[in-house]
Amino acid sequence: MAIGLLESVNTPEDLRALDHAQLTRLAGEIRDFLVQAVSRTGGHLGPNLGAVELTIALHRVFDSPSEPILFDTGHQAYVHKILTGRRDGFAMLRQRGGLSGYPSRAESEHDWIENSHASTALSYADGLAKALALRGERRTVVAVVGDGALTGGMCWEALNNIAAAKDRSIVIVVNDNGRSYAPTIGGLAAHLNALRTNPNYEKVLARVKDVLSRTPLVGEALYDTLHGIKKGLKDVLTPQGLFEDLGLKYLGPIDGHDIGAMEHAFLQAKRFGGPVIVHCVTRKGYGYAPAERDEVDHLHGPGAFDPRTGKEMPKPRSWTAVFSEEIVRIGADRPDVVALTAAMLHPVGLAEFAAAYPDRVFDVGIAEQHAVTSAAGMAMGGLHPVVCVYSTFLNRAFDQVLMDVGLHGLPVTFVLDRAGITGDDGPSHNGMWDLAILSLVPGMRIALPRDARRLRELLHEVLAVSDGPTAIRFPKGELPADVEAVDRIGGVDVLRQADDAEVLLVGYGPMSHVALEVADRLAAHGISATVVDPRYLLPMDPALLTLCAAYALVVTIEDNCRQGGAGATLSLALRDKGVDTPVRIHAIPQRYLAHGKRAQVLADIGLSAQDIARSVVETVASLGSLDRQPVID
Amino acid sequence: MAIGLLESVNTPEDLRALDHAQLTRLAGEIRDFLVQAVSRTGGHLGPNLGAVELTIALHRVFDSPSEPILFDTGHQAYVHKILTGRRDGFAMLRQRGGLSGYPSRAESEHDWIENSHASTALSYADGLAKALALRGERRTVVAVVGDGALTGGMCWEALNNIAAAKDRSIVIVVNDNGRSYAPTIGGLAAHLNALRTNPNYEKVLARVKDVLSRTPLVGEALYDTLHGIKKGLKDVLTPQGLFEDLGLKYLGPIDGHDIGAMEHAFLQAKRFGGPVIVHCVTRKGYGYAPAERDEVDHLHGPGAFDPRTGKEMPKPRSWTAVFSEEIVRIGADRPDVVALTAAMLHPVGLAEFAAAYPDRVFDVGIAEQHAVTSAAGMAMGGLHPVVCVYSTFLNRAFDQVLMDVGLHGLPVTFVLDRAGITGDDGPSHNGMWDLAILSLVPGMRIALPRDARRLRELLHEVLAVSDGPTAIRFPKGELPADVEAVDRIGGVDVLRQADDAEVLLVGYGPMSHVALEVADRLAAHGISATVVDPRYLLPMDPALLTLCAAYALVVTIEDNCRQGGAGATLSLALRDKGVDTPVRIHAIPQRYLAHGKRAQVLADIGLSAQDIARSVVETVASLGSLDRQPVID
Repeated sequence: MAIGLLESVNTPEDLRALDHAQLTRLAGEIRDFLVQAVSRTGGHLGPNLGAVELTIALHRVFDSPSEPILFDTGHQAYVHKILTGRRDGFAMLRQRGGLSGYPSRAESEHDWIENSHASTALSYADGLAKALALRGERRTVVAVVGDGALTGGMCWEALNNIAAAKDRSIVIVVNDNGRSYAPTIGGLAAHLNALRTNPNYEKVLARVKDVLSRTPLVGEALYDTLHGIKKGLKDVLTPQGLFEDLGLKYLGPIDGHDIGAMEHAFLQAKRFGGPVIVHCVTRKGYGYAPAERDEVDHLHGPGAFDPRTGKEMPKPRSWTAVFSEEIVRIGADRPDVVALTAAMLHPVGLAEFAAAYPDRVFDVGIAEQHAVTSAAGMAMGGLHPVVCVYSTFLNRAFDQVLMDVGLHGLPVTFVLDRAGITGDDGPSHNGMWDLAILSLVPGMRIALPRDARRLRELLHEVLAVSDGPTAIRFPKGELPADVEAVDRIGGVDVLRQADDAEVLLVGYGPMSHVALEVADRLAAHGISATVVDPRYLLPMDPALLTLCAAYALVVTIEDNCRQGGAGATLSLALRDKGVDTPVRIHAIPQRYLAHGKRAQVLADIGLSAQDIARSVVETVASLGSLDRQPVID
Repeated sequence: MAIGLLESVNTPEDLRALDHAQLTRLAGEIRDFLVQAVSRTGGHLGPNLGAVELTIALHRVFDSPSEPILFDTGHQAYVHKILTGRRDGFAMLRQRGGLSGYPSRAESEHDWIENSHASTALSYADGLAKALALRGERRTVVAVVGDGALTGGMCWEALNNIAAAKDRSIVIVVNDNGRSYAPTIGGLAAHLNALRTNPNYEKVLARVKDVLSRTPLVGEALYDTLHGIKKGLKDVLTPQGLFEDLGLKYLGPIDGHDIGAMEHAFLQAKRFGGPVIVHCVTRKGYGYAPAERDEVDHLHGPGAFDPRTGKEMPKPRSWTAVFSEEIVRIGADRPDVVALTAAMLHPVGLAEFAAAYPDRVFDVGIAEQHAVTSAAGMAMGGLHPVVCVYSTFLNRAFDQVLMDVGLHGLPVTFVLDRAGITGDDGPSHNGMWDLAILSLVPGMRIALPRDARRLRELLHEVLAVSDGPTAIRFPKGELPADVEAVDRIGGVDVLRQADDAEVLLVGYGPMSHVALEVADRLAAHGISATVVDPRYLLPMDPALLTLCAAYALVVTIEDNCRQGGAGATLSLALRDKGVDTPVRIHAIPQRYLAHGKRAQVLADIGLSAQDIARSVVETVASLGSLDRQPVID
């Protein structure tokens, strides 16, 4: 029976035919569906369980896609996908060729924005509303933003602009669960908490519920009802503090699991005609006991799990776990070492450090810019800050790394997790730009560990640097077995030495394992190759340049984008030194990569050992007899 | 007589020996000194004239450098320089080897931060205060921030964090002149305006002044007085709206030209022991009639000028002026073309566009991130937004360009003014990274005009692109004479054709004039060279690659950093195509460049025609007989 309702809903219009009892049943079915679906594929669970009623209410009141609904941090858009005809796609959620874990314009006209870096939706909304106004179209733009995302500065830039125009209809729905990844922190969180616990809230809510329970709520009737309880709502529709001072109407707080209450509020907001904030209070993981019980992250984004218990399938040991262990160890000897995170304490492996040294870890909110510049301030104050961040999110603080840390030559260490191909989360989560932007920063030292042992070793090395910034990056993938060097030349680890070799394979970080496999395959073709792991991209090791000059062909392998990446940087250094040895660069092509498993994506873009080996064989053939090049300059 | 006072003040301690009548006289002398000094060298005038009393009061109350005073947007730090022993340096202000136009750690222990991108000071302050707290040092950290900078999201990220700790002593001085470059806009500006015009303000101010006029104000006496007027101040020391909701104490508004009133407030704030906002209302250009009369920017940052009239010396026609003219012309035919600026309407040349099409220009505040992402929203809404920004400030929105515009393939055009070496303003204002970060964005087209005619032509071309982002960049320097091409191959302009040439000189944008001069010099050494201007860096023109393959040596010249710049990008494309022709890249070295005139700086880093020609001669000699390379692949 329950299944029937969910199966009957394939467009937002279908929702409008249901009464509130049916909607409540539908919410339950959606929740069951989500748990079952995500348990098989992995994906974002907690945020979506919390947003079921909210999303239903949005699609009842707003006419998507004509009235765009923009989801900030799109991982809360699963319910939206279900309600816009994509239920069947969940069997292949986040699989190559299957449903994206984020909104996707290729999937549906109901999806407007694909990027899932937080705190951007209000800016899109401001722009879209300005465009509609200029074109004389009166359509409401809706942005759904979490309380966590509000700690990001972009939201404030957007609110400041949105507030400036009273006649553009923008409804800002704050999905407030009091936590993004970890409990939301800072002055804003305290403020939202005060609103949430406002005694008027319960009182008015009770009145609203009372009236609702006695009224059918379809179309205009809904508005009439709303009008009837205007007096009750008036108390909450008064602008509130923080938002009032920016000139924004505030409506709330609303029970984010009460579809009727939200419909009322959304309709009121829509009819207002100007910018309005609707503050909905939800609970992450709502309605699924294992997620509600999970105090750490409410099953925010699990891998495949057992739907009965919420227990995830065991995962192989990760790079993050090694970092986590080692930074705690280092912290014991180094009271100057402090750690920063932008609302990702657990995912970046800082929970143990926080437990061991609670006064030496700083969660700044989803605020990468502030993380970096406050780290600069800490370094000025004599500390050695370690900024732990996903590689892709460092892009948000490039200027701060360059100007606030780099220009002052400060000893700040950037630990970039999820570097290279991450895969499942699609184009906005791959960590494929970090080497390119970090290598622009004068004086930046960039370490790329190839395995757990090197991660520990290089972490110690970069934390020993006191005269400038350092970075260390490692991927999301499984931790490979340690591979010991057979020699070290300068700072370069030689992993395979072949005295008669004409090809030098340079494998950066974890890609040095691929380089070893390429060497095996080349050997089968009668091509002898030396394999090295430079350990650092920068500073450029003179030993590496000398080494390159001694070979007839240099082949670089990395999991960063080609442009400005490791191979390009080495290539540039060789050009500058007047070494004209041919160089072939194997890296991520300069395009946005669709989601899929990391290994699949690497293979798709030609970064498998097989493809690289084939390419090298062809190059060797086309170069003819391989001559060692003379070093000039 | 007046001169005597200024000459007696060489350290902040000297200030503390003066009484208020003397301080007022000193302020007048400083103002005269600033006008005279800046009239000779050019520099930032208006902001410093507005901050004279504020800076005096700061140095009377806080014990710099032990209590760090951090200036956001350091161009308001001239008075601070005068009061910390650097008066004599103003003769060489912003000249090579002379005084920097911004705080500089090399100049003084009183200077903590050198970067002058706006909205960063509060983040430094938060980090510094955290470091001091962790080390058990109880010192106040002071951050001076303009009302304009508060429109930048970083400030909100910082305030959110600062508010979270009640026991760290941070005094945030808001220097509120109601305008940064142009009048400050948005909800925040309206809020500040409301505070400024609070009726309590004048009332309390009058009481404070009354008490002050009857009391000697030195050391502890000052505190006693303060205590005496506590009742009066109480009304203003209540937390106020916006800041209260974040949990910050608010003190103000204070008359920012009343030294005594500010001293009281600062002392109160210092004694409070936690984070406090002190809101000082100042007037940009205060006390110098030509600056006060100037409604546009209050002589914000003039070149050399006549101190009697405030009239600047005539300047040669600029790239900005050509852009300004052409975008107005384009706007007439293209109702979809809209323009955005981050608080720089006049400097980026949009004033005429704004006058012609007032509803099609959007000043978003000092908020580059929002500028870019709201432009993405506008493009989604069917417009073609033109984001006009100084090259160096685009670094602040790299993630937004990459993810919000690029990932969605939206037709947004970035117009980058002040690209390349800007010189005078030092390391944080050179536009030397834009090509490197723009070329990371898949699908980005990047145009580099070499002269006015090409600027007009390329502007039309990039605005005709409807399927993805485009950028066009030009320098601060003087507009060169137009140089017509002798041929066009593919999209590449051939500026000098030499059939027997073995060297191909690739000059990007304005550097193609340097390339022509290099060719002249090479001819004198018997080396024949072809000179081309590719017009676009990306997409890579296949004709350029073919051309490169036909020469024995390729030499690139650009005014962007080496790493990831134009030469590196061409070099990479050649590597990928299997063209192993030697390439020599002439670009800005990977380091922070001290201030100086643009031409001087270019010469210092080896980007003069003379240096490049010498280097090419040497390369040719070392390569021996120049062979054309075979194209492989």
